[in-house]
Amino acid sequence: MKTPVKYKLARILILFLLIAFKTQSQKTESYKSPPSEVLTIHSKILNEDRKVYVHLPKLDSSDLNKRFPVLYLMDAENHFEMLSTYLDYLSRKDVNITPKILLVSITNTSRNRDLTPTKITIFKNKPDTAGIFKHSGGNENFLQFIRSELIPMIDSTYKTQSYRIFGGHSLGGITSINCILTHPDMFDAYIAISPSFWWDDEYILKLTEKNLIPSSTLNKKLFYCNGNEGGMKATFHENSLKFDTIIKAKKLVGFESMYIDYPNETHMSVPIFGYVEALRFIFKK
Amino acid sequence: MKTPVKYKLARILILFLLIAFKTQSQKTESYKSPPSEVLTIHSKILNEDRKVYVHLPKLDSSDLNKRFPVLYLMDAENHFEMLSTYLDYLSRKDVNITPKILLVSITNTSRNRDLTPTKITIFKNKPDTAGIFKHSGGNENFLQFIRSELIPMIDSTYKTQSYRIFGGHSLGGITSINCILTHPDMFDAYIAISPSFWWDDEYILKLTEKNLIPSSTLNKKLFYCNGNEGGMKATFHENSLKFDTIIKAKKLVGFESMYIDYPNETHMSVPIFGYVEALRFIFKK
Repeated sequence: MKTPVKYKLARILILFLLIAFKTQSQKTESYKSPPSEVLTIHSKILNEDRKVYVHLPKLDSSDLNKRFPVLYLMDAENHFEMLSTYLDYLSRKDVNITPKILLVSITNTSRNRDLTPTKITIFKNKPDTAGIFKHSGGNENFLQFIRSELIPMIDSTYKTQSYRIFGGHSLGGITSINCILTHPDMFDAYIAISPSFWWDDEYILKLTEKNLIPSSTLNKKLFYCNGNEGGMKATFHENSLKFDTIIKAKKLVGFESMYIDYPNETHMSVPIFGYVEALRFIFKK
Repeated sequence: MKTPVKYKLARILILFLLIAFKTQSQKTESYKSPPSEVLTIHSKILNEDRKVYVHLPKLDSSDLNKRFPVLYLMDAENHFEMLSTYLDYLSRKDVNITPKILLVSITNTSRNRDLTPTKITIFKNKPDTAGIFKHSGGNENFLQFIRSELIPMIDSTYKTQSYRIFGGHSLGGITSINCILTHPDMFDAYIAISPSFWWDDEYILKLTEKNLIPSSTLNKKLFYCNGNEGGMKATFHENSLKFDTIIKAKKLVGFESMYIDYPNETHMSVPIFGYVEALRFIFKK
């Protein structure tokens, strides 16, 4: 999204107004934030340019020959900065909850297209006349973009390990679960923060029941959680419980899951806690 | 702390090794992190230059005439980046847990001097022959630096409100509590994450008992918490409970406190959760 020039000027003005005249006894420099980069990659599959934000782990000389696991995170606009900070802090030697991890976070161009598993024409029991979800159902293309274009590009650009995590919130949460159900080979661990199970008459719950074969092997980790959100037929919490019941009844071999209910968190505050617990679960020794 | 040139070169080399050759289909820019600055201020009281990191709230045109509360945070090296990210996220309109806050975070020059209320010569039941705490007991000077030099400078430089919070972890935790006991007028709210109550034979617990007059008025907020740390005579948890008992027995008027025990967190992971809950408590509507 391009910022119009008049808003840019307004922002500069605001900055000038915020920062008054400095006193003589002080010197000001800008703070050097840990390094992150913005990559623009042309996707043939999606027929558009995509921007991804990449946060590099803080390295020291002991990391010279190391390769790093990668967290692929949806909704970069909302959660890239939080996860960058978490990954830096959680991998400190004196915190030691995760190893150093490369963060690759995808910004949205058409969120309701990319982060939805099916196309819907009815929303909140009414025809979607406003066309909010006109282009919905793009999960498959979006996952193919990640598989065939993004991952190979990241692997050829950075010193990555093959261990990959896929994380998302809300519609990104059902996208993460849709991926483990339809392309489980793409990632080693999956994070679904407050997944929108209400989508398309609880499509993902039905797909979970259908696609997972009882007692089959699925050597994957999955973390999911919810806040105190409402929902369509059921609250986010009730739907998470349904999902939890389906998953457990499958008695999958090699599969590890963790579920947390956050009754005191909203839809937007639950990522603050959920992502930390997800990373702790995935890397627990 | 100045980084020697050879380490700087090593870091650049590591960065080159991490980032291999880019593929043709991609463009790389550096990510623009939210703006923070480093101020260097000469302290006459401490007779040295001090660096403080300042994180500016993300502004829009509705903020033009606003002034902002200030969080003064100790141990900038450890927690400035985390709190910067938290303050940005918690003040988002769709998260709405805090207002926009200016973060002023003090880096250390002599941590064991500045963040200790008394001078000790015995450490872990042995004489401190290594001289780790040779210069301890600098809290009073450090607080005078904040009161007489740092706060006036910040108030003359940025559009601040008079509402101020003081936050610290470990020795910074007892410094925060020492401040509310000895200079309660300096801040409106105090945060003590895993305070080192063990310091000097539980000096701060004794001072709490001595300095707080029963049924007196203290219009302040105080948040404290602990992880699963051990201690000298008692664990951090046991000492927090003692503090909690003393505070509650005082029946202070206008005083609000919140205490959380985090039995599953270490001394270094407890700030991840404690600072969020502290800010939520201080700004709860």
